[in-house]
Amino acid sequence: MLSSQNDASTDNVATFGHWAELLALYFDPEETRLDTLLGKIKEIVESNEVRRLPKIPKGTRDFGKEQMAIREHAFSVITSVFKRHGAVSLDTPVFELRETLMGKYGEDSKLIYDLADQGGELCSLRYDLTVPFARYLAMNNINSLKRYQIAKVYRRDNPSKGRYREFYQCDLDVAGQCEVMEADFEVLKVLTELLDELNIGDYEIKLNHRKLLDGMLEICGVSSEKFRTVCSSIDKLDKQSFEQVKKELVEEKGLAVETAEKIGTFVKKRGPPLEILSELKGSGSSFLGNSGSVLALNELEILFNALEKSKCLEKIVFDLSLARGLDYYTGAIFEAVFKGSTQVGSIAAGGRYDNLVGMFSGKQVPAVGVSLGIERVFTIMEQLEKEKNKVIRATETQVLVAILGKDLLLAAELVSELWKVEVKAEFGLNKRVRNHIDRAVESGIPWVVFVGESELNSGFLKLKNIESHQEEMIPRERFAEELQKRLNMV
Amino acid sequence: MLSSQNDASTDNVATFGHWAELLALYFDPEETRLDTLLGKIKEIVESNEVRRLPKIPKGTRDFGKEQMAIREHAFSVITSVFKRHGAVSLDTPVFELRETLMGKYGEDSKLIYDLADQGGELCSLRYDLTVPFARYLAMNNINSLKRYQIAKVYRRDNPSKGRYREFYQCDLDVAGQCEVMEADFEVLKVLTELLDELNIGDYEIKLNHRKLLDGMLEICGVSSEKFRTVCSSIDKLDKQSFEQVKKELVEEKGLAVETAEKIGTFVKKRGPPLEILSELKGSGSSFLGNSGSVLALNELEILFNALEKSKCLEKIVFDLSLARGLDYYTGAIFEAVFKGSTQVGSIAAGGRYDNLVGMFSGKQVPAVGVSLGIERVFTIMEQLEKEKNKVIRATETQVLVAILGKDLLLAAELVSELWKVEVKAEFGLNKRVRNHIDRAVESGIPWVVFVGESELNSGFLKLKNIESHQEEMIPRERFAEELQKRLNMV
Repeated sequence: MLSSQNDASTDNVATFGHWAELLALYFDPEETRLDTLLGKIKEIVESNEVRRLPKIPKGTRDFGKEQMAIREHAFSVITSVFKRHGAVSLDTPVFELRETLMGKYGEDSKLIYDLADQGGELCSLRYDLTVPFARYLAMNNINSLKRYQIAKVYRRDNPSKGRYREFYQCDLDVAGQCEVMEADFEVLKVLTELLDELNIGDYEIKLNHRKLLDGMLEICGVSSEKFRTVCSSIDKLDKQSFEQVKKELVEEKGLAVETAEKIGTFVKKRGPPLEILSELKGSGSSFLGNSGSVLALNELEILFNALEKSKCLEKIVFDLSLARGLDYYTGAIFEAVFKGSTQVGSIAAGGRYDNLVGMFSGKQVPAVGVSLGIERVFTIMEQLEKEKNKVIRATETQVLVAILGKDLLLAAELVSELWKVEVKAEFGLNKRVRNHIDRAVESGIPWVVFVGESELNSGFLKLKNIESHQEEMIPRERFAEELQKRLNMV
Repeated sequence: MLSSQNDASTDNVATFGHWAELLALYFDPEETRLDTLLGKIKEIVESNEVRRLPKIPKGTRDFGKEQMAIREHAFSVITSVFKRHGAVSLDTPVFELRETLMGKYGEDSKLIYDLADQGGELCSLRYDLTVPFARYLAMNNINSLKRYQIAKVYRRDNPSKGRYREFYQCDLDVAGQCEVMEADFEVLKVLTELLDELNIGDYEIKLNHRKLLDGMLEICGVSSEKFRTVCSSIDKLDKQSFEQVKKELVEEKGLAVETAEKIGTFVKKRGPPLEILSELKGSGSSFLGNSGSVLALNELEILFNALEKSKCLEKIVFDLSLARGLDYYTGAIFEAVFKGSTQVGSIAAGGRYDNLVGMFSGKQVPAVGVSLGIERVFTIMEQLEKEKNKVIRATETQVLVAILGKDLLLAAELVSELWKVEVKAEFGLNKRVRNHIDRAVESGIPWVVFVGESELNSGFLKLKNIESHQEEMIPRERFAEELQKRLNMV
């Protein structure tokens, strides 16, 4: 029971079960004291087991070395797109004052992680990167900024396959006064570049406009104080049927059945942006009498034309059922989803939020942003790497200094000469040649320098190229230089 | 009072003060009702102000664009050192199960940030990167790993100048069975490379050994159950006088005065490693009769010789007063400090911890690691950049597409051609040439392409180099290609 290995501890439970069965044979089946005793022993065995296996919090995960290599590749693709558009980097604390997050996330606020009250301020883990960005602008009185941030956010959601409580977001936000749709265009363009260059499959970007949505609800007869909560229901249409959503609208949100049905006719509209737009702007369209909707349609017309000029409009689908759950959006809203047989949910989302900064400072700074939820991207990339059957190198080591013995001082002297000239090198102390070669092969290290007694006496070291199997002798005093040559470093 | 600017709101308080003074002139000084009224108004003005200024939690901070540029430079130096030594990257969650952190940090456990109990598991923010690393090894049954991790850790310390509650650590840890001092040597070598290559000033690395320290306490007559708590006191010697520490040892830790004084004679010993070592190993040394101390001295001899072969022993100071507060160290321990007039405290620290992984899994995996506290490095680097009077570019933008008007569609078309061939480009919509040039100069953008009506009619665009002031006309249909040439991209 005090066995030190995890495997052994699992065995303990099995062994106990077997032992209990045997023991039962010797006892009267009516005798309950045995059961009580066995129950207690079982508890102890299992609790030992639990104590010995450390765990990670539910909904979180570690990234090991191969996963990190993939993740770093994805981040470098994403960062290069952001930098191509002249965005600057910003970092904010992982927790914010609780008051900063309150009133920004609608019904999802219940998912915010709070820090314990240990005296001092009340804080919560960030729920997204948008609110901290707005807080940063307001706090520092900044009126204009195009920034990106790649960082983890936290949501006390029910963990499920591919859904985590801690996950990365990659955000680009453009804040500041500019021409109509100037920033909206660029943010959407960036999103298409991100998804294209990550190269993980076909996708579409659903797009709508909050003012068009509000206009639609007004036309359907919904009172304005219910706009946001009705939007939360409509937003579920990508996962639920209209019948389910209608039930929620009528029974929970208190809409009249005919109002809900009228909404139903509108939210079915989706298709190529310019087609749907011309339908909604066409004569007889009920939107023409609603000033908010007209404004939204005019903005969308500019946006669609700019995206067409930029050759990425074919990725956009104008979708009147897209509502987005968050409270703070005020203009264009969008959400990217993978196309294909499996419904994998949204991979990126964003929109315009002109009032959020003002909620902090009283001074309006219009802004628009997109957030890429990168976790699914990692999963897909890992899958693709596996399919390619390519070994992912977790290190970049170029040379293994293989000491055929235990002489640490010799190893220290030789390998330090390599490190000094920035050769990536590891060393090993082992008298068996095979052991060093296995290590090099396993880690994909291309060169091995063998250092045994004969090498030291001759003043030459044996250099082996793992891929070509070629070996040569190089002078001890010039060995770092010779390796640099072979690595094209000089 | 509803003024929307922060500046204005500060003005409000000043204006109110002035206004109150003027008003007072018209009233009887004996009349208290005016004071009451003014007091109430003052309260309202100030509370408005407080509400309008969002705050960041105490002890945390944002990193703006120039700071991020410096920080990213520091991280790239650090990462390249880690990779040069064949270390792999690991990422773990920002919070761990509370039980994972318990019993690892001695008296500092009170500084751990807890998450609120919102149902489910009890979690705490990580306090360092070492315990999560050990948890990772134990959980995944990994016996050998050289990993680095650059991530934030959390401590509910009293925030002071240069001391934060959220800060980065850059850790390298080497876990696994190997030859005596093999991993300890490499970790210390890495530390000297990090501090050398960050190039921020002279430093020294204080070094001691937990078993030598325990032997010393044994020789002084301290009972073994007091070793750790006495170490916590000794560890304060870099900030407090021996008299203060002695007082703590006697009054709080219950040592006899003569025991404390005997400790005092030992902890004064510090100096060049091989000198101090030969003193402690010399005939008549009280350490020779203590088996733990002899083991420690033999290990240190190997370590010092390896560091000498590696040409970095001159950075090490053997210091018997170094104790380190953490519970989990079992062998060599060390701490790097900047040299110079100002005492800035430790910048990096580490040591061997052979039992930590076993605390989780029951299976011992020996390990040694170092943690670089990077925050002070950032501050010093920022200071150095300021002294150099160099403007730090926050973006890498190469071209500004300057539309002399408001035509977003034209901008979208042109700038997309640049993005497509990976030119880093921004665009601007403004009819004034000056405005575009100012923007390019301010952001350090080297090239501006002007697009006005005359340019469009002629089929040529005007290209300006900001540094040389040279202008030339380039054909519209080949403008992306021409820019790539000038940027040496083709």
